[in-house]
Amino acid sequence: MTVIDLNSDLGEGFGAWRLGDDDALLDVVTSANVACGFHAGDPTVLRRVTERAAERGVAIGAQVGYRDLPGFGRRFIDVDPAELVNDVIYQIAALDGFARVAGTRVRYVKPHGALYNAIVTNAAQAAAVVDAVRRYDPSLPVLGLPGSESLRQAESAGLTPVREAFADRAYTPSGELVSRRLDGAVLHDVDEIVARCVRMALEGTVTAVDGTVVSVAPQSLCVHGDTPGAVEIARRVRAGLLEAGLSLAPFAV
Amino acid sequence: MTVIDLNSDLGEGFGAWRLGDDDALLDVVTSANVACGFHAGDPTVLRRVTERAAERGVAIGAQVGYRDLPGFGRRFIDVDPAELVNDVIYQIAALDGFARVAGTRVRYVKPHGALYNAIVTNAAQAAAVVDAVRRYDPSLPVLGLPGSESLRQAESAGLTPVREAFADRAYTPSGELVSRRLDGAVLHDVDEIVARCVRMALEGTVTAVDGTVVSVAPQSLCVHGDTPGAVEIARRVRAGLLEAGLSLAPFAV
Amino acid sequence: MTVIDLNSDLGEGFGAWRLGDDDALLDVVTSANVACGFHAGDPTVLRRVTERAAERGVAIGAQVGYRDLPGFGRRFIDVDPAELVNDVIYQIAALDGFARVAGTRVRYVKPHGALYNAIVTNAAQAAAVVDAVRRYDPSLPVLGLPGSESLRQAESAGLTPVREAFADRAYTPSGELVSRRLDGAVLHDVDEIVARCVRMALEGTVTAVDGTVVSVAPQSLCVHGDTPGAVEIARRVRAGLLEAGLSLAPFAV
Amino acid sequence: MTVIDLNSDLGEGFGAWRLGDDDALLDVVTSANVACGFHAGDPTVLRRVTERAAERGVAIGAQVGYRDLPGFGRRFIDVDPAELVNDVIYQIAALDGFARVAGTRVRYVKPHGALYNAIVTNAAQAAAVVDAVRRYDPSLPVLGLPGSESLRQAESAGLTPVREAFADRAYTPSGELVSRRLDGAVLHDVDEIVARCVRMALEGTVTAVDGTVVSVAPQSLCVHGDTPGAVEIARRVRAGLLEAGLSLAPFAV
Repeated sequence: MTVIDLNSDLGEGFGAWRLGDDDALLDVVTSANVACGFHAGDPTVLRRVTERAAERGVAIGAQVGYRDLPGFGRRFIDVDPAELVNDVIYQIAALDGFARVAGTRVRYVKPHGALYNAIVTNAAQAAAVVDAVRRYDPSLPVLGLPGSESLRQAESAGLTPVREAFADRAYTPSGELVSRRLDGAVLHDVDEIVARCVRMALEGTVTAVDGTVVSVAPQSLCVHGDTPGAVEIARRVRAGLLEAGLSLAPFAV
Repeated sequence: MTVIDLNSDLGEGFGAWRLGDDDALLDVVTSANVACGFHAGDPTVLRRVTERAAERGVAIGAQVGYRDLPGFGRRFIDVDPAELVNDVIYQIAALDGFARVAGTRVRYVKPHGALYNAIVTNAAQAAAVVDAVRRYDPSLPVLGLPGSESLRQAESAGLTPVREAFADRAYTPSGELVSRRLDGAVLHDVDEIVARCVRMALEGTVTAVDGTVVSVAPQSLCVHGDTPGAVEIARRVRAGLLEAGLSLAPFAV
Repeated sequence: MTVIDLNSDLGEGFGAWRLGDDDALLDVVTSANVACGFHAGDPTVLRRVTERAAERGVAIGAQVGYRDLPGFGRRFIDVDPAELVNDVIYQIAALDGFARVAGTRVRYVKPHGALYNAIVTNAAQAAAVVDAVRRYDPSLPVLGLPGSESLRQAESAGLTPVREAFADRAYTPSGELVSRRLDGAVLHDVDEIVARCVRMALEGTVTAVDGTVVSVAPQSLCVHGDTPGAVEIARRVRAGLLEAGLSLAPFAV
Repeated sequence: MTVIDLNSDLGEGFGAWRLGDDDALLDVVTSANVACGFHAGDPTVLRRVTERAAERGVAIGAQVGYRDLPGFGRRFIDVDPAELVNDVIYQIAALDGFARVAGTRVRYVKPHGALYNAIVTNAAQAAAVVDAVRRYDPSLPVLGLPGSESLRQAESAGLTPVREAFADRAYTPSGELVSRRLDGAVLHDVDEIVARCVRMALEGTVTAVDGTVVSVAPQSLCVHGDTPGAVEIARRVRAGLLEAGLSLAPFAV
């Protein structure tokens, strides 16, 4: 039976502000990319979501991002790679503290937003992220886009690269995500999203915006929690994968 | 031979801003209270100072504070204790990440500035700090003012309380520090400072602003790095303690 | 005909985070207390809400607070009054820039959250707020709790004090607000809220938690936008006031 | 007699952190580019430096930057231009509040650091800065690099572009500044700096790193305050310009 992981971004509230429905998503996903405080997530949010993830056996990943609360980590920042290494170590370590307090550990690293997109091609920043993981704990897998610099460099450095695909995001013919600033970047049709997910999980392919069939061969599928109806979409994706005979489990334990 | 620890606040720069002379102080002290990013200290500062402390065998302590960069952690904030617990865990864990990367670990916790002063008497916030240390790692000692709520509660919770005294700060008759907002809060005469330190280390007492002799019985002496001439004072204190026949060593290993 | 103002806190989103429904509230209130960036509100939020307020003839007030995004300005901070003056000037001026760009001006100042509560009794911080308004523009009225230090000092300094009452907050017998940390601090029964508002506007009194009748004589009533169902409550309050024969208009023009 | 303006970055401390010697520089320059809080500068710093600038007749400019305290505004951020407009309005307005309190006004706008460099070529961000100035006050001149997008667009929009040159920065053959990340980006030889300044002011030219003579024709010369010995260099530049028969005066009044 084919096994697939279902991941989502959690812990993205901050202070009085809420974003997404962490509790609902924790019943859907097998891996939780938990914000670490640089683009979202305050310590109390982190404490709560790590405890609940631990209770439900959901794997906790460090969702590391640029230090940019006002931009929610969605804007490229030309951070000196020598400093980016340290920004990433800081975030993994802070979240790992809460994971340990909850009786578990950070199990993987997933860069967030603009950092995620940057290190598809930006070799220097990809190297910084990889170096941070290697220094903090080389046993931590790195989630990324198939074909990305980040996964290539992770592999070269002896880390475990993990390919992911996005349930509700449009792809370019070269297998990158269509920028959120463009129309059509995010899919909304639930049936289409579920069908894409099943196909990506079983066949490893997705159709890009121009009709090209792109190979993505994901080990994990990302469902979003920050769009309207996100939880319902995530539930439908989970149900669709199970109906298609797939098994859901964290890629990292 | 009487052993005493010499601690100082380090890692208190932020981005383009520098504060104190970390490198010079690392040759003077036996314990470094390293800022964790909430009142000062960015990840690159933390990386640098933890590496250098590790190289020199200086014990690394988590200098946890209120989340207040503009106020440098020197202003009381009425943080909900349930949130303060998490703010403290976050800070210890983040710094511990760098300590581990440097081949060592955070060895103790020292609250900073207004938080330090608050938990001399504020039982709810003291309990929050103690709870955070207990959850993160109950083997970590807590540095504090003799007679403080923080040390009392640390002891009750099964943590190791460590009494400290301040080389260059004036004391009230009840053994608290004179507020920095008042004249005379910080001593500047080097000979007086050295003599006070030797007396505190050997006899365990200090003379308060009104002439009262206060028992402080310190296990660690704090020298400051953020006042003019601080490094020279710290060097003179170290030399004075050694001349008086004391031995210098970290209280936590 | 008795005239009353209806104010609410607006512009309290930040980056990706939303809070309350600014557009809906702008159709209900006559005065908008717009966050200025220190406890909430980023520049793009401020631009949007000031433009829409200007279009609808809603008076714009500067909702100045402690510099505390993670705490949403709801935690007392022991800011040096000499610095608080400047924090308040900064916030009023920044918002006034957007008001001017929108063709209007900041018309009044309403301290937010913990600062609002602090200056009911904290004379030094009240003096700082009053000094800031006096220096920035002494024609700006200051909204506050009847009997508060802030209104007393505003009046002494030649500013215009404006008494406000809260639609959905419980009162202590001395006319202060019950702390949000206590049960029953916020009322939820819409009919009760509307009835209280009409009575406060017409008779000037409200019943405190212990049954005491407190005189509040408000010139403005505050409805909240950050609780569930807030907009519907605000609409009902507006309708109830109009039905009772009151006229709604900004106190400041 | 040829008139030239001498500008420098001031107000770049933050909380407990100091940077540069504002008081000394205010005796040297004719225009002060005052940080507005996004890359540096807290409200108390702004209050102090605007008051002192006003006392000495030094023109106050808004040194607007990316919202990036940890990076001191020196890292490019891919801010959505629609949001950058508002970030710039916010900063100008906040500083203008202090200028008004000090009895004067913001007299010009100078983008800082990475934003300054970005809008030499980035048309969308240049348009955002120009749009912000136009909306806030179209009478405010914009300082920039000769030949830059920012000055071109400022002129097209009906604003007043002002050409500046840098006393201690190396130039590329195309008239851009050599990146601070490269060796030789900042000149340190005082005599060379003074001679370059006199030549730029009198002849309008400077020699680039490859020997090319570049036309810069500055209306203002920028001296830095954040490098060691900066104040002495600035004093020597001022003296050198006066000795060469130039007259010093703000370009904006």
